[in-house]
Amino acid sequence: MKRCMSCEGRYDCGNCCKQCLKAKVAFLTMSQPAFFSDVILFASDDENPIPIPAHKAVLANRSPVFRAMLENEMEESLSGTIKIGDVSYDALRAFVNYLYTAEVCPDQQLACDLLVMAEKYQVQHLKDLCEKFLVANLNWDNAFMIYTFAHQHDAKQIIDAALALITNKMDKLSARKEYEELKERNPRLIFEIYEAYFSKQANTPNKLISPSCSDFEE
Amino acid sequence: MKRCMSCEGRYDCGNCCKQCLKAKVAFLTMSQPAFFSDVILFASDDENPIPIPAHKAVLANRSPVFRAMLENEMEESLSGTIKIGDVSYDALRAFVNYLYTAEVCPDQQLACDLLVMAEKYQVQHLKDLCEKFLVANLNWDNAFMIYTFAHQHDAKQIIDAALALITNKMDKLSARKEYEELKERNPRLIFEIYEAYFSKQANTPNKLISPSCSDFEE
Repeated sequence: MKRCMSCEGRYDCGNCCKQCLKAKVAFLTMSQPAFFSDVILFASDDENPIPIPAHKAVLANRSPVFRAMLENEMEESLSGTIKIGDVSYDALRAFVNYLYTAEVCPDQQLACDLLVMAEKYQVQHLKDLCEKFLVANLNWDNAFMIYTFAHQHDAKQIIDAALALITNKMDKLSARKEYEELKERNPRLIFEIYEAYFSKQANTPNKLISPSCSDFEE
Repeated sequence: MKRCMSCEGRYDCGNCCKQCLKAKVAFLTMSQPAFFSDVILFASDDENPIPIPAHKAVLANRSPVFRAMLENEMEESLSGTIKIGDVSYDALRAFVNYLYTAEVCPDQQLACDLLVMAEKYQVQHLKDLCEKFLVANLNWDNAFMIYTFAHQHDAKQIIDAALALITNKMDKLSARKEYEELKERNPRLIFEIYEAYFSKQANTPNKLISPSCSDFEE
């Protein structure tokens, strides 16, 4: 094995250690989206939309949806303008920036907005990241909202984490106002919670014996 | 500390582990330089030069020399054509590919060609990589050639490694045909070898006492 060319460890083309990989990420990051831009993005719901300059090559490399849109001489390719609906300027800015840098520091709202865009434009790396952020920040207060949101966007990882959290507090379930709302609006999701709870019980020996089982305790 | 969003370890925006960093490198790699190209590079010494399509934004992001050339509306920017002399098509292709992927698997000749281009266009990440490749592949057979080459391109890391190797075999020095050639062509480099040898001796206690010191033994 030759020595690593970047860190003087074992050489495998710069992928051998965190230091080499970080240097590679820094090298590959595109820092100046405004230079030689050939396409403009707008959050089309804004009254006075602010243009976000970008490059067709970068968009097409990161997203198969943008690639199809731009390669096929659709309106967007010919006009050099892509209008994106149902998104704020800030979220679109963060989305475009992610395509150049693979960096974002989201809060819950931004993670939800970016997950929706990542799904729509098939940017799997960003969708994974948003899913993991939302899972890491799940709590009893946001669990119902995030659970419902995850179902709308087929985010399996979040659904599983939210079900695990909710089924640990079944005694408190019916007291939540979201429970009544969801029963009304989307009863399928409530059934899924009950089914997940009893499936977990069935897979945990000696849990269904006592009717006052400890899962219902504080 | 939040959990890592990409590997479910600790969360620090995807830089926490090799797996996250590799995913980031894969995401940031540009795989299709031909898409929406706005500039063409040629190895101008070739009789029938083959065009290498690229993007001004990528060249400008990776190299301050390309940036200055393209931003300042010089001939290259206006014509969308960059002619590069003293380089083969294969080396230029590998150079451009590196700007998109940060990947190359060089042999000695290619590493030398790329180091020259990396120096000319100030692509430090590639210059470092070529220097480390050449250091890792130094041996008694190529040491004089690489030592001379390193001096032409101010590659300090290679010079130090070559001097360390050569000064370990001082008894064989004058038998090398490159020694006579270098004495004639560039005596300064021969002085440097002798000076490096005696400086090493001075820093190694009890080495200069005997005239038949063990450094000169096989």
